[in-house]
Amino acid sequence: MSQIVLYMSMSLDGFITGPNDGPSNGLGDGGEILHAWLRDGSGDDPTSFRPSDDTNATVFDESMSTGAVICGKRLGEFVNYWDGDHHDGVPIFVPTHRVPDEKPPGDVRFVTDGIESCVEQAKAAAGDRDVMLHGAYTAQECLRARVLDVMEIHLIPVLLGQGRRLFDRLGPEHIELEPARQLQGAGVLHLRYEVKS
Amino acid sequence: MSQIVLYMSMSLDGFITGPNDGPSNGLGDGGEILHAWLRDGSGDDPTSFRPSDDTNATVFDESMSTGAVICGKRLGEFVNYWDGDHHDGVPIFVPTHRVPDEKPPGDVRFVTDGIESCVEQAKAAAGDRDVMLHGAYTAQECLRARVLDVMEIHLIPVLLGQGRRLFDRLGPEHIELEPARQLQGAGVLHLRYEVKS
Repeated sequence: MSQIVLYMSMSLDGFITGPNDGPSNGLGDGGEILHAWLRDGSGDDPTSFRPSDDTNATVFDESMSTGAVICGKRLGEFVNYWDGDHHDGVPIFVPTHRVPDEKPPGDVRFVTDGIESCVEQAKAAAGDRDVMLHGAYTAQECLRARVLDVMEIHLIPVLLGQGRRLFDRLGPEHIELEPARQLQGAGVLHLRYEVKS
Repeated sequence: MSQIVLYMSMSLDGFITGPNDGPSNGLGDGGEILHAWLRDGSGDDPTSFRPSDDTNATVFDESMSTGAVICGKRLGEFVNYWDGDHHDGVPIFVPTHRVPDEKPPGDVRFVTDGIESCVEQAKAAAGDRDVMLHGAYTAQECLRARVLDVMEIHLIPVLLGQGRRLFDRLGPEHIELEPARQLQGAGVLHLRYEVKS
């Protein structure tokens, strides 16, 4: 059955960008270090990022075998929705309150009736494949709504000190996790957790 | 040579307590889950906490083989400086701007001339053993002053959502870490990092 899997690179102190992130500075000041493990490839096409390290390539390939993508509008606009094709032309779902006037490139689908609906539509589109979730704000929405199934955290051995946190604005209720896998790649520790319901 | 080693249990979202921590609620609301891996023992004496899980016991024993302790005054007062004996009667160093009027029990030494001096004195007292550092605020002081050598993070598979963060109030300068060991114990992933100078 299709699962919603969050893929995010995070510093040990919990940041997914450096400070001052914005349209022309997506990873924030100095945040590139978080994606260094992906940078064996070249260019802005995510499919060109495939790492040469075997462990990192395994995790990367898993993410690229997903059948749909959910991303936040903020992130999507920063990267122009990967020119409409994150990988293999799978549909890109974007939860939002307001559909932009200008249609973005490719198969980008805005969902205005809530995160639960967005998740349902993405799972349906993905069929028996998983759904890649990307973006901190949308991850928090999914966690609050209890619709996130799995987290694959790429933990980077650095303290950024400042920036945008992956886990923020959550309620005081605990969300228990089941460790599913730990893989040490070159420059990154991949931690996979199942989110307990 | 003696090293300053931070030992802290932290949730995946970076918290070392739940919300509302205070003198009678040291781990905050619901924060006990962070120390569950230590709770095979009994009572308030840290030396009675030795876990039954072999991996957890290994890490615990390492922490208890340290030759001195540094802790924050806030934490120390919460636990009455472990009645003056954290383990084996090793001295407990407490960086502070103000020495309390009442002398705490045991070999507690207040250091008022800065975190660097505190670290030096603790290392001297520990001889060829390492120094256990405990407490978020003091850890941040050591990180800012670049006098922390090693971090042993006991990563707990839970999102607390709210509470006191281990890594906070740091500057925007990156602190790079060298992964030294990953040990999966029962209910906790022990991540050891050397802090690059």
